[in-house]
Amino acid sequence: MYHCAACGGSGGKAFLIGAGPGDPELMTVKGLKILRSADVVLYDALVDIQVLSCVPENAEKIFVGKRDHRRCTRQEEINELIVSKVSEGKRVVRLKGGDPLIFGRGGEELDALRKAGIDVEVVPGITSGIGVPTSLGIPLTNRGTSSSVVFVTGHEDPGKGKELVDWHSIARIDTIVIYMGIKKLPFIIRQLIGHGLPPEKHIAVIFGGTMPGEVVIAGTLEDIEDRMIDHVNDAPGLIVIGDVVRYLYRSAMSDAGNDAAESGSREYLQ
Amino acid sequence: MYHCAACGGSGGKAFLIGAGPGDPELMTVKGLKILRSADVVLYDALVDIQVLSCVPENAEKIFVGKRDHRRCTRQEEINELIVSKVSEGKRVVRLKGGDPLIFGRGGEELDALRKAGIDVEVVPGITSGIGVPTSLGIPLTNRGTSSSVVFVTGHEDPGKGKELVDWHSIARIDTIVIYMGIKKLPFIIRQLIGHGLPPEKHIAVIFGGTMPGEVVIAGTLEDIEDRMIDHVNDAPGLIVIGDVVRYLYRSAMSDAGNDAAESGSREYLQ
Repeated sequence: MYHCAACGGSGGKAFLIGAGPGDPELMTVKGLKILRSADVVLYDALVDIQVLSCVPENAEKIFVGKRDHRRCTRQEEINELIVSKVSEGKRVVRLKGGDPLIFGRGGEELDALRKAGIDVEVVPGITSGIGVPTSLGIPLTNRGTSSSVVFVTGHEDPGKGKELVDWHSIARIDTIVIYMGIKKLPFIIRQLIGHGLPPEKHIAVIFGGTMPGEVVIAGTLEDIEDRMIDHVNDAPGLIVIGDVVRYLYRSAMSDAGNDAAESGSREYLQ
Repeated sequence: MYHCAACGGSGGKAFLIGAGPGDPELMTVKGLKILRSADVVLYDALVDIQVLSCVPENAEKIFVGKRDHRRCTRQEEINELIVSKVSEGKRVVRLKGGDPLIFGRGGEELDALRKAGIDVEVVPGITSGIGVPTSLGIPLTNRGTSSSVVFVTGHEDPGKGKELVDWHSIARIDTIVIYMGIKKLPFIIRQLIGHGLPPEKHIAVIFGGTMPGEVVIAGTLEDIEDRMIDHVNDAPGLIVIGDVVRYLYRSAMSDAGNDAAESGSREYLQ
């Protein structure tokens, strides 16, 4: 048996696990199983408190939510913490919202751990960009309406210095899902209309998707900003653009028919 | 309480559930919980036998795997079957591989059920396009390398008559994931190179992802077809194209260092 330099053969191991889009029950069976046998769990703000209740009582729980103004330092601290705990022979779970390698700098964490010679297992999770629309009945792909869907971040690395997202090409994909784009929504809409999307293209903005208090605001590229005025919201927001958003309307109608639209927090397009 | 026309207030309900990318443990806690309380389960070829072992013994299990030559009829039959069972007051689970609304005609099934007035709950699953690369340590998005990822089907509706995928725009997205594209791979590669991707762009083809016997073949757009010659495979294949595929190589090196590359079924780029 090979003993890695970092853990000294102590059996320590790191797990990079996706906690899913919000609803704790949307975590995988595998992720939950590993979480239940963890010695140390590092988690961030996107992970629900109910998921953490599954961590063994004697396990160490460490909040590593990042703060914007010292992002880089914190990322290095997280990596060092994981390496150090694994070296002590511990089973260390790094729990991230959504899928661990879709946005959120998971790829960098994985790379740093590998470079440190740590044994790492990656357990996928449901990314919010799919879990949220699917649970609302919006099919991101649909025969005849959408044969492609693109996932893009609205919040690009501020260190980049220039805009790297090719909005011209993005505008030509059937369905567009934007993570971390709420603050830049006016800019994004200008880009998409400027690159040829019609102002009446359907759009939905979802805050706190799959969670209690979920808010769904739907409309068109030209009226969504007006519709959002009364919805100040700090929950993570997801943006979905494309003809498939019309299915949300059918869903709302269906919900209304079944007296199930009583959550009161959803507002749908007319 | 509202009694819907289809179930007559009998309490019947349909659930459209994603079974995940292959590994039965990558199903969600919620999906499994509903499956365990099902009266009827309709499943297709992409669902693993181990998942089905969780269905109650007295529940009815119906295989509805589609056959290419009578695709349309079968789809209607599936919809009619679900409506009929729900009308009998049963809890009917339609279990689909991956996420229920990403490719695979889930949107149409949902639409048909809604039109029939059926109460439907959609439970997301991990789509193979994310679950397979993530479990291999390929970050589909990565700071500095990829700020966007597109999912596209290589197998378009034969009834369409013309090519609807805009390969020119697809080629401009940082990471490209293609479902059902194995048979059309030579065509897809010609399209992508013709629209500006360099022949040395990294590509990985994965058969049976997240399952025992998974096969990973990696290379470049210009040599991948040669590398695939000895790998005749009937398992569902996924194609990942982009600079992030290089992380697979680091993963393989890391695996080799940990004596964990003994599964023997993986071939990596050199």
